[in-house]
Amino acid sequence: MAETCTVFEVGPRDGLQNEPARVSFKDKLQFISELAACGINEIEVGAFVREDRVQQMAETDLIYDAIHERTIRLGTTEAWSLVPNRKGLQRALLAGAKNLAVFTAATDSFTQKNIGMSIRESLAEFREVIREAKQQDPNIRFRGYVSTAFGCPFEGKVAPPKSLRVVEALLRMGVEQVSIGDTIGVATPDQMDQIMKPALKSFGVKKIAGHFHDTRGTALANVLRSLEIGIRTFDSSAGGLGGCPFAPGASGNLATEDLLYLLHGLRFKTGINLAKLCQTSLWLAKRLKHSLPSRYLAAYASDCR
Amino acid sequence: MAETCTVFEVGPRDGLQNEPARVSFKDKLQFISELAACGINEIEVGAFVREDRVQQMAETDLIYDAIHERTIRLGTTEAWSLVPNRKGLQRALLAGAKNLAVFTAATDSFTQKNIGMSIRESLAEFREVIREAKQQDPNIRFRGYVSTAFGCPFEGKVAPPKSLRVVEALLRMGVEQVSIGDTIGVATPDQMDQIMKPALKSFGVKKIAGHFHDTRGTALANVLRSLEIGIRTFDSSAGGLGGCPFAPGASGNLATEDLLYLLHGLRFKTGINLAKLCQTSLWLAKRLKHSLPSRYLAAYASDCR
Repeated sequence: MAETCTVFEVGPRDGLQNEPARVSFKDKLQFISELAACGINEIEVGAFVREDRVQQMAETDLIYDAIHERTIRLGTTEAWSLVPNRKGLQRALLAGAKNLAVFTAATDSFTQKNIGMSIRESLAEFREVIREAKQQDPNIRFRGYVSTAFGCPFEGKVAPPKSLRVVEALLRMGVEQVSIGDTIGVATPDQMDQIMKPALKSFGVKKIAGHFHDTRGTALANVLRSLEIGIRTFDSSAGGLGGCPFAPGASGNLATEDLLYLLHGLRFKTGINLAKLCQTSLWLAKRLKHSLPSRYLAAYASDCR
Repeated sequence: MAETCTVFEVGPRDGLQNEPARVSFKDKLQFISELAACGINEIEVGAFVREDRVQQMAETDLIYDAIHERTIRLGTTEAWSLVPNRKGLQRALLAGAKNLAVFTAATDSFTQKNIGMSIRESLAEFREVIREAKQQDPNIRFRGYVSTAFGCPFEGKVAPPKSLRVVEALLRMGVEQVSIGDTIGVATPDQMDQIMKPALKSFGVKKIAGHFHDTRGTALANVLRSLEIGIRTFDSSAGGLGGCPFAPGASGNLATEDLLYLLHGLRFKTGINLAKLCQTSLWLAKRLKHSLPSRYLAAYASDCR
């Protein structure tokens, strides 16, 4: 079995956004270019959101400048950024971003807190965003995030059809892939059977990604069950950076290192150099002045000592 | 599916043994009795090893005194202790211990470092230990540990037949259950297919337990694959206490809290109160003056704030 899995790296955006300490713009550029040099093909680099809401993301426009001016070289790696609405889209288009992500959730109380809209309102907005974007440049690609697909900090466990309806709505409006998120890290593998399996069956392997948080230690068990089901794209963040600033108690993006150790152990090809990634994460941890939660990274660091 | 899983708690021995700080004897007794009160039915409480080798275990005899004098009440919970050889057995018999564990490994270089014997020598010694014990009290039960069954810090990856031969040898000499250990936390789920699956097929569900370390984050993924295979007994330690003092870089026993969250999520019955266990681990963490590595426990503690 020499099957391929795609790792979608969210560290520079989802990860750094949730760090209390701010890394310098220069360090952020280095982080992104080193992740690309590790062989990661898809990297979420920023968000065209209001700077007053998420301070860390103020530099997204400048990141695209650096990419286009070849200050950093990404090779074949694709850079992705979030756009919350048409205003963000205009910034994204000006910046020359080609890969954009829209984000909503499976529960209204979460979307209200997170983006100030109901699910229905967010979907209506994204429909316009995608229409406008495709008008200006038909090659712009969209990814969609569905947060709280397995459980919500305000509403508890989420009925699978609720999550699946949002996934379907996003795909229908032209999103190429939907990342189904366990935002607060409560999911267990039986929920993969209830949500990832029907999603895969309805929409196909390229359309569906798993975005799991390791808040309660279950992220890799959820990845394993998803792999068994046939899912082949997973989001993760280098070192396990980040979480969600609007979900109380949410911490622990699945660490890319832990994900890679599992995937490579199961003989999946990812094209990513795990040792090089560990070096990158350890370098970033020094800049952040604290260790990162990845288990594999800690073992790697102690082996290097 | 209202199936039952057995959780074998190793925190008071395997866990505390690897703590640099020593907890008082009184606290250790309280820890054991609170674990029993959480509904844990099998607890490894000590080891009849030489005190000069493992300082923390000097109190094992006194723990049995406390059990027999009802200073602590374990109810239906069984207390287990390690015996390394016939000398240890004599102490165990004097202490009135009824549930004993012998421990070897799948690799000679590890047994040499850990217990100063080759695998063959250790098996010969245990055969005598079990024979002597059964002569004195036919009701004494034995459990066996096979360390480094998936990978060894000195020899790397271990060929499955090597591990399976040691498992079989222990069962043949009258051990009731063998706990197959990923001592350094390198295993990935494909290795469950190669070792846990044939072991289960050859010896049956009651004879085989999984003992996984979370050093690289894969413990729960290995538990999940083992559950799918049909394994129903897992070792873990409260809060994720402990590791192995003789294996370089080895840390991270699978945390009982993380294991329980997975098992309960998958609708397995364990009879264990997870919230009460978290309280117990948080109390112990205070005594140890540092936080414990369990992911679930950290999420629980932050929810309680």
